[in-house]
Amino acid sequence: MAWNRVAVVGAGLVKFGELFEQSYEQMAAGAFSAAVAHVDKGIEPRQVDAVVVATQRGSLWGQEGIGGNTVPSAIGLSGVACTRVENACPSGSDAFRVGAMMVASGVHDVVLVIGVEKMRDKSAQEGLLARAASGHPIYNRGETAPVLFAPFATRHMHEFGTTPEMLAAVAVKNHHNGCLDPYAHFRNEVTVEQVLESPPVCHPLRLLDCCPQTDGAAAIIITAADHATRFTDKPVFVAGFGVATDHPALHEKSTFVGLPATTEAAKRAYGMSGIGPSDIDMAEVHDCFTITEILDIEDLGFVEKGKGGQATIDGTTSLEGRLPVNTSGGLLAKGHPIGATGVAQLVECTWQLREEAGERQVEIRHGNALQHNVGGRGSGVSVVNILTRNR
Amino acid sequence: MAWNRVAVVGAGLVKFGELFEQSYEQMAAGAFSAAVAHVDKGIEPRQVDAVVVATQRGSLWGQEGIGGNTVPSAIGLSGVACTRVENACPSGSDAFRVGAMMVASGVHDVVLVIGVEKMRDKSAQEGLLARAASGHPIYNRGETAPVLFAPFATRHMHEFGTTPEMLAAVAVKNHHNGCLDPYAHFRNEVTVEQVLESPPVCHPLRLLDCCPQTDGAAAIIITAADHATRFTDKPVFVAGFGVATDHPALHEKSTFVGLPATTEAAKRAYGMSGIGPSDIDMAEVHDCFTITEILDIEDLGFVEKGKGGQATIDGTTSLEGRLPVNTSGGLLAKGHPIGATGVAQLVECTWQLREEAGERQVEIRHGNALQHNVGGRGSGVSVVNILTRNR
Repeated sequence: MAWNRVAVVGAGLVKFGELFEQSYEQMAAGAFSAAVAHVDKGIEPRQVDAVVVATQRGSLWGQEGIGGNTVPSAIGLSGVACTRVENACPSGSDAFRVGAMMVASGVHDVVLVIGVEKMRDKSAQEGLLARAASGHPIYNRGETAPVLFAPFATRHMHEFGTTPEMLAAVAVKNHHNGCLDPYAHFRNEVTVEQVLESPPVCHPLRLLDCCPQTDGAAAIIITAADHATRFTDKPVFVAGFGVATDHPALHEKSTFVGLPATTEAAKRAYGMSGIGPSDIDMAEVHDCFTITEILDIEDLGFVEKGKGGQATIDGTTSLEGRLPVNTSGGLLAKGHPIGATGVAQLVECTWQLREEAGERQVEIRHGNALQHNVGGRGSGVSVVNILTRNR
Repeated sequence: MAWNRVAVVGAGLVKFGELFEQSYEQMAAGAFSAAVAHVDKGIEPRQVDAVVVATQRGSLWGQEGIGGNTVPSAIGLSGVACTRVENACPSGSDAFRVGAMMVASGVHDVVLVIGVEKMRDKSAQEGLLARAASGHPIYNRGETAPVLFAPFATRHMHEFGTTPEMLAAVAVKNHHNGCLDPYAHFRNEVTVEQVLESPPVCHPLRLLDCCPQTDGAAAIIITAADHATRFTDKPVFVAGFGVATDHPALHEKSTFVGLPATTEAAKRAYGMSGIGPSDIDMAEVHDCFTITEILDIEDLGFVEKGKGGQATIDGTTSLEGRLPVNTSGGLLAKGHPIGATGVAQLVECTWQLREEAGERQVEIRHGNALQHNVGGRGSGVSVVNILTRNR
């Protein structure tokens, strides 16, 4: 039923955080080493015959060079085919999808999908995600990420009675999960009160409603499903995926209580995999802001539209809940090094499906996990990948 | 013998030049319309189910927004899957390869590969390709493209007796071809004397040894080879392709008389397609500088190493020669809008194989064409695509 033509055989990452002491290339090498070490039956790095690098801004953050084609040389694979995929916040999850199609096409045998982002080093001209803003003479004034997502929060509150406490419950849950993830940027509990008293950023979003800016890298090694047992006895298969775009500008949005790109990407991924929302054991979703996770779990079909806030308060998405979400700590606590984010989410899904997630391991009943990102001037593109341990 | 699982069914572009009056998105729309119009049996834009956008710097040139995922909305395809591929100068040719694998994997049916680059509009902080330079405290001083390629020219002269007149012959030939290409940025003849007397840029490269900075967009529509005749009676098939990386920094290069990434990428493409250099009817290769075309035709196996300059003087690569190279005018005359370049080269190869190239049409005997780019801090990555009209 599921697509299942490609398998993850190794998955690893570097600890996320402020990695001033590591270059872009050093972070990439660290993630690659971690993924190689995770291949339990062993793999020679030279068995990798193609690399897909996810980096959103290779040449701005950290004044590093062109992102992408410098990675093979830095990780000891000079000569290998290498492609960089950039797709805003879903860069990493889209790179994984592209890598899966490279394998499925029969052109490449073993593909390394690696996400790397340097966000804390900045040149003098740079601030936050300023450069990601449009060049439009009006829209690019104040078009920061919180400004793009805040109207979704106010509208969701207006239509469904979502409260600041419900938003805060997302941050509390994800920070709790982050405490259990040794790779997370922030590993501290936060309380509802701390979130509600944190400094306002853009009403109604406060500091602890927002994900941090983080350096990080994550890597996944994939191969044809038929060859996966050469490398591991615990392959995780790519059941399906979907990508969808939406009009990028706020004034063109058809709704402010959901992200249609996510709904459509999910529909495509569910259709390709034959796996539905009720078959998912855990999910890593794009919680760049607390409101985003609430939109996501509704748009992905995990809870009814408008019920995401209450479901979070009720514990539906906690580690012990019906559908644990962002077990890694999510973007809010683990961090959001853009190109690395999606790949790292897929690392978490892989580890959870293999029951290697330690203290934060959730119960795996169906054997399926879902990974999701949305981004691109807020919500211009969304990617959903579904992994399964069933074949 | 050839791979032949994917076919080009439509190919078009906008006239290259200084397109200050067109936005990034408008150029993309123009190229898409041209490709749709080229599908002789007709295609509905909505039949496109995935877009691969090649753009090297979506957010620097022209202060435009994030490159890639804004394109579907701008060309009337909001909702469709969209991925941006960036791979330095080979961005367009690599995007084509990625699109071909998307089709070959069975995931997507009709893929639009579109390259777009705004290079003439610049923000105050930007100059030439300054931002593409490495962040290394030493290497990024003066690391412009002419500086990266000049040592290859001096060494080639030293080892093989290549002369400034041989370099100039490349510019003379490609400018002549550009005169016959209505889409070329520069449509004027140049003489050997004019090249030799043009202002020095970086010894031994002079102004007319260097390609211009150009705005442009080009688009190709591909589909499964088995479905191609739904759209056209003259499909052109993807026979094979190859990508290879090399150490990016000059001090790590193993040679200065060739580009190993090109040699390796060509080997892979020839191996995948079963088509060799002597089976090629025409080629579009990366002539960012005159010396680069001489290196290319040697590295691709068209002429013996060291003989590229003399072969150019002898007319081997002219429109009437044994193997016409850069019939479109090449980067030197047609221009080099980075993301668009490779896609536009593939448009030219498609038109030549379909014998639609007008005044610059070359004789097609074998039915095969080769397209090549190299780039990434000079020569860190190379891509070769081989097209064929035989199946």
